[in-house]
Amino acid sequence: MSSLTATHAPKGLEGIIATTSSICYIDGEQGVLAYRGIDIHDLADHSTFEETCYLLWNARLPSRDEVRDLGRQLGQERKMDKAVLDMLRLAPKNALPMDVLRIAVSALRFFDADEKNNDHAANVRKAIRLTSQIAMTVAYFDRLRKNKPLVDPDPSLSHSANFLLMLNGERPSPTAERALDIALILHADHELNASTFAARVTAATLSDMHAAITSGIGALKGPLHGGANEAVFRILESIHQAGADPVGYVRGLLAQKKKIPGFGHRVYHTEDPRATHLRQMSRDLGHSKGEPDWFEMSHSIEQFMKSEKKLNANVDFYSASTYHTLGIDVDLFTPIFAVSRISGWAAHVIEQLDDNRLIRPRAEYVGPAYPVKYVPIERR
Amino acid sequence: MSSLTATHAPKGLEGIIATTSSICYIDGEQGVLAYRGIDIHDLADHSTFEETCYLLWNARLPSRDEVRDLGRQLGQERKMDKAVLDMLRLAPKNALPMDVLRIAVSALRFFDADEKNNDHAANVRKAIRLTSQIAMTVAYFDRLRKNKPLVDPDPSLSHSANFLLMLNGERPSPTAERALDIALILHADHELNASTFAARVTAATLSDMHAAITSGIGALKGPLHGGANEAVFRILESIHQAGADPVGYVRGLLAQKKKIPGFGHRVYHTEDPRATHLRQMSRDLGHSKGEPDWFEMSHSIEQFMKSEKKLNANVDFYSASTYHTLGIDVDLFTPIFAVSRISGWAAHVIEQLDDNRLIRPRAEYVGPAYPVKYVPIERR
Repeated sequence: MSSLTATHAPKGLEGIIATTSSICYIDGEQGVLAYRGIDIHDLADHSTFEETCYLLWNARLPSRDEVRDLGRQLGQERKMDKAVLDMLRLAPKNALPMDVLRIAVSALRFFDADEKNNDHAANVRKAIRLTSQIAMTVAYFDRLRKNKPLVDPDPSLSHSANFLLMLNGERPSPTAERALDIALILHADHELNASTFAARVTAATLSDMHAAITSGIGALKGPLHGGANEAVFRILESIHQAGADPVGYVRGLLAQKKKIPGFGHRVYHTEDPRATHLRQMSRDLGHSKGEPDWFEMSHSIEQFMKSEKKLNANVDFYSASTYHTLGIDVDLFTPIFAVSRISGWAAHVIEQLDDNRLIRPRAEYVGPAYPVKYVPIERR
Repeated sequence: MSSLTATHAPKGLEGIIATTSSICYIDGEQGVLAYRGIDIHDLADHSTFEETCYLLWNARLPSRDEVRDLGRQLGQERKMDKAVLDMLRLAPKNALPMDVLRIAVSALRFFDADEKNNDHAANVRKAIRLTSQIAMTVAYFDRLRKNKPLVDPDPSLSHSANFLLMLNGERPSPTAERALDIALILHADHELNASTFAARVTAATLSDMHAAITSGIGALKGPLHGGANEAVFRILESIHQAGADPVGYVRGLLAQKKKIPGFGHRVYHTEDPRATHLRQMSRDLGHSKGEPDWFEMSHSIEQFMKSEKKLNANVDFYSASTYHTLGIDVDLFTPIFAVSRISGWAAHVIEQLDDNRLIRPRAEYVGPAYPVKYVPIERR
């Protein structure tokens, strides 16, 4: 670096404030998460995913008419161009759903009514469309790979109920619908997490919403991010299959210097407020379905990790047992994270474009000192 | 923000050193660009794109055998799974090639021999494959949209010659092959530019190479980044069609407060060393083809912008007239940037994963003060 004004950031940009934002408030010391200033506990207790989307995209809670309108628009956008559906059919049946989602969102741009528009209003419309289409893609691909007939969307249902209908081929119980709805609310946004940051970096070149969301999906897949909920369940499954003692099993992993997914968070130094809700959901769903084991196992591991490692469970830990108890396949856990997080990604892309500047940091060069002589090939 | 240790970065992370890197050295004051310490002028004068790829991926120049091996591997990887080709056929003929590229790279992961591997050696193999496949995708889609028969790759040709063969259906002249090769060398890497940064943010979640490169492609498309070379040509074309005076036309745009693409750079405060080469290429190609107008027009605009606005031409400015004189369609300019930049993106992803940490900055919350009361819907 020749510039005299360059500032060295900690690795991974930890603790660097990369932008201002009015979407998500986090207090990592107090364990507070709020969307547009409203506490996540209030939203989880009283809101719906549709209302939360409205809040994220419009910076205020909707009136009854406004939320009904948004629900109607989401219902109307439950359609998919045949070419995109044909692309899903071309994906191998053993493809990871997260990879399929990346293709679908990339392709949906061709068929978007606002293909050529990148203004605020057009991007809100794209947010609505993508919210509907991402959920449909996950459901469609899951049925395609299982050789099950595709299920038509029902525009009269809530987003959560329609997703479960298209996935499972039957209307969900009110309990399952509400459980998924709360999970979607809890996962909707989380400030500058890695996928949202990837989406903002992409959008800031004045590329487009679909490109930005595709970047977000690619980043969310990683096991250090959204992929962690799948990794948690793989451990629970191994314990279950081996009939092992959960604490003994985790102790064994730690002895092998393995990281236990679902614990610790760069931002929270106390309990992740989303974990509070998901723990409760995991417990309630387990009991109501007569399958309390997944929760019990998770709870033992959580208590051990807290006392032994001083690490708190994060959002991923109890989403694993919750989703499993809802009957969802493990490789759909991260896609369902995307089904929710599209709302936050879109809000961040819109915010980025409202006051844009290219996101282009520097690297400190630590390679061979310039100038390294170019040696002609005959003398190498 | 509650954390006491947070550091406010300038907007767009300008001047923030986000990572160390041994790939690309830039001295923005002196106008120096070097890959692995070797000056870009030496590489443009003496190297080939294959050799530059080897240098970027292996941190040293190859022996004669090593570069021959890499050429052979690139040749062998000139193949594409039928399903990916079928996806290209499903894209509308008027789709933007940059969007098609995003789909193709997303999908190529399914058919990658190293699908499940994310280690250093596997990622070098993926870099080789993607370098071949991205070039093929651009050529295939261009022929598909023009209803021309697809051209089989020729594994015996250089990367540049094969690309031009597959694009145009005939072997290029040595001049055209060398011109493209130099353009690919010049565009191969540029430190933490926005697309490379998007790729590193994606890779750092331990997602995969294909996801990271897809993020890079999405970001490169933006007119504040790779998309600028297309924007430059649109202006040259308008001037040409109107028979206008180039300086008068640009003066008119400035009077309307429009930005002139292809000028200024966040990092260089003197001439972009890539522009030096591209200016020469634009002049030489124009003269040898008997079409000096595109260069002359560009040169007048450059001189005006330098004297009037104190802005230097950047890499995008002369690549527009160069590519046009090579007979390349304007909406392939940015895809050709990607055909080159895949080499740098891959080098950065590999470097990121060799010493990884999740890239997760913070945002400063500037929305309504927490806690905003949740007002029940019946009272709104």
